[in-house]
Amino acid sequence: MAAGRLAPGDRLPATRQLAAELGVSRGVVVQAYQRLTDEGLAAARTGSGTVVTGRPGTRRPALDRRRTLDELRLPLSTPDGIDLNLSPGVPDLSAFPRTAWLRAERTVLDRVTGSDLGYGDPGGAPGLRSQLVGWLSRTRGVRAEADDVVVTAGVAQGLALLAQVLRGEGVSDVAVEDPGSRGATDQLAYWGMRTTGVAVDDEGMRTDLLADAAAALLTPAHQFPTGVVLSPGRRRTLLAWPGLIIEDDYDAEHRYDRSPVAALQGSAPERVAYLGSVSKSLAPGMRLGWLVAPRRMQTALLAAKHATDLGNPAVPQLVLAELLASGDYERHLRAVRERQRRRRDALLGALRAHLPGARVAGVAAGLHLLVMLEGYGDTPDTVLAERVAAAGVMVHPLSWHRRRPGPPGLVIGYAAHPPDRLAEAAGRIGMALSPPGR
Amino acid sequence: MAAGRLAPGDRLPATRQLAAELGVSRGVVVQAYQRLTDEGLAAARTGSGTVVTGRPGTRRPALDRRRTLDELRLPLSTPDGIDLNLSPGVPDLSAFPRTAWLRAERTVLDRVTGSDLGYGDPGGAPGLRSQLVGWLSRTRGVRAEADDVVVTAGVAQGLALLAQVLRGEGVSDVAVEDPGSRGATDQLAYWGMRTTGVAVDDEGMRTDLLADAAAALLTPAHQFPTGVVLSPGRRRTLLAWPGLIIEDDYDAEHRYDRSPVAALQGSAPERVAYLGSVSKSLAPGMRLGWLVAPRRMQTALLAAKHATDLGNPAVPQLVLAELLASGDYERHLRAVRERQRRRRDALLGALRAHLPGARVAGVAAGLHLLVMLEGYGDTPDTVLAERVAAAGVMVHPLSWHRRRPGPPGLVIGYAAHPPDRLAEAAGRIGMALSPPGR
Repeated sequence: MAAGRLAPGDRLPATRQLAAELGVSRGVVVQAYQRLTDEGLAAARTGSGTVVTGRPGTRRPALDRRRTLDELRLPLSTPDGIDLNLSPGVPDLSAFPRTAWLRAERTVLDRVTGSDLGYGDPGGAPGLRSQLVGWLSRTRGVRAEADDVVVTAGVAQGLALLAQVLRGEGVSDVAVEDPGSRGATDQLAYWGMRTTGVAVDDEGMRTDLLADAAAALLTPAHQFPTGVVLSPGRRRTLLAWPGLIIEDDYDAEHRYDRSPVAALQGSAPERVAYLGSVSKSLAPGMRLGWLVAPRRMQTALLAAKHATDLGNPAVPQLVLAELLASGDYERHLRAVRERQRRRRDALLGALRAHLPGARVAGVAAGLHLLVMLEGYGDTPDTVLAERVAAAGVMVHPLSWHRRRPGPPGLVIGYAAHPPDRLAEAAGRIGMALSPPGR
Repeated sequence: MAAGRLAPGDRLPATRQLAAELGVSRGVVVQAYQRLTDEGLAAARTGSGTVVTGRPGTRRPALDRRRTLDELRLPLSTPDGIDLNLSPGVPDLSAFPRTAWLRAERTVLDRVTGSDLGYGDPGGAPGLRSQLVGWLSRTRGVRAEADDVVVTAGVAQGLALLAQVLRGEGVSDVAVEDPGSRGATDQLAYWGMRTTGVAVDDEGMRTDLLADAAAALLTPAHQFPTGVVLSPGRRRTLLAWPGLIIEDDYDAEHRYDRSPVAALQGSAPERVAYLGSVSKSLAPGMRLGWLVAPRRMQTALLAAKHATDLGNPAVPQLVLAELLASGDYERHLRAVRERQRRRRDALLGALRAHLPGARVAGVAAGLHLLVMLEGYGDTPDTVLAERVAAAGVMVHPLSWHRRRPGPPGLVIGYAAHPPDRLAEAAGRIGMALSPPGR
């Protein structure tokens, strides 16, 4: 029937005859015919045995997952010819604390109750929310109670939920940093928000240009991709501005020279929606983050989260709560921070040696460097990044993250590679960018 | 400053003086003032020391999570006075296979690679998708390749993604079963779909009444809440109907008397969007499910999933893949099925003894029974359920799941309780429903 050899109206062989042909008991054939009948593909007709009445669906169109993902601008595989992928945003995944995670999960599963595993609070497991407020208060100055926290599937989902609620409030414009995160802009666009770029300089977003926008998305502690910290004066301007501040605290755990500046949220909890996640501290594949928003938004945010997925998976939430409570999360972060600092220093030193005309922007923090290439003439940074790619090293041209044109630069992620590989990468970048014949 | 005792313009004490007062080194105070300055709350003014320039946000409105959840119709806690919660939809969470899950997770974490934990394919981990197509083909007759599967945060998210894609195609009406799942209807409404109820009788949804609806949501293998199986004739009508069939295969693992009828998807893969999850087989708190949709919808579905959460968490996906590959998932299901069958039999027997006027609807499957109470006069089933609640037993009145009025009934979940507790519940239900003085 699936192959089309039996069409509706055709008679199936008598059960006794088919059973004999196939060498099986008649009961097996009767059962098979019953299944076909139950599925609506055949019917027993008095006097004429079992007759075909339907046809399973025909051949399906071809699938090409890679093309589909490319259409969605989701380059999930490293391009051919690249052996050193220094795209920004990916942490050192080999550092994932497997032992501590498994130990915490065993503890969690030993004491988990039925209600922990049932349909839960869409805002997240209470145990995790209460650990998070302690952690965020201590490390980031966030002011919140456990019930202020909505556990999310990461910053991207936090943006999706906020966009849905803002749309419900009649807001459809968000100011974003330029240069800034292209992923965040794409995300907001899917949820119907128009984004306007606001220039970023050495003090962070030009908050004096926000004017009457209703909402602004910023990375105040460590701007992506420039690495600058929002200056005290700009923070003051921002806190006096009446719109909703969406604070993406994406890598605040990774400051190497001093404690990071506190979150804006602590200065204005009813004006700031604060977003964070474990994507840079544990792994992006955890899809686990948090949102602390002004209280007037809470009912609508919980409705949005419930309609999106009914809430985050329970077990990983409880495991993170256990890691926070045991101090294992903090120990892990300390070790990772020390390792990333050494990697940053290694890349920085090697770039100074191999790329003397470049200037490294931003503070000692994060998982990537921005290298400004003003000294490289008028060549667009997309072309410079292609030359680097031809040497097997993948980096992002700064212009990928820009809306308005600006000086050329390269965004180079260092977190995923040991110092010797980073020195190798810097050497190849230096070779690739040295003008021919020099 | 937070308490309002220091206002903008006020001078902070000199660092030396405050250090002496507090008995700390001056460096500590200097650092603290620097933090306040960085945060925009204070500024160093030449000649006048450090001056307050901002004020942290004032007191926030009160939070009442329980009221918020009640407004959203999410009753997450058992009401006062209930000691036997027999609400439908919750599996036996004490049966969660902790040992097998932890063992599989150890295996997964031993061999997990960086790319497994990075930003992955929004459609899900390839390893899980390929295990799922084997499993769904074998147990449900689903026809799919691994790339047809979108791993979701459960059936609710599958509906959310489908609704977004349907809206993009200009479809905003979905036919649903009446009675049917109220949760599914609420979910579709959030995403902008109007739902129209189509009557359900002893053969399932009246597919002859679908007419020119563009999409229909059904539970063909075991209708919720009536427990009937969609008849062969109705399946044929449905397969000849041109709209999109959304097949919620919510508890197909739980048929006790024979193999469940195959999924409709296998008969028409380009016309059916098939939804399933581990909510009834493992736990709702896993938030892990799957969607197999017509191929024309795939790019839009992946875009919606990406914009929603970038994809499901990686580790639980890989653990489920391991459980499917090892056979542990199938062994778990067999054990659970046997236990549920005994519980169903226990409840059924006790109800026959204590509630002789009632009629139990549906086939031997699932996690709940529908008890029809035509013999109980004109009393609405909401009143009958209240009488039962007064005896400490929570059940759902059938009318909660109805759009149009119909005969009274009670939907009684049995999965979460052992046979003796179910017998106790049936006894109390019988007492509560016996007419006074009889």
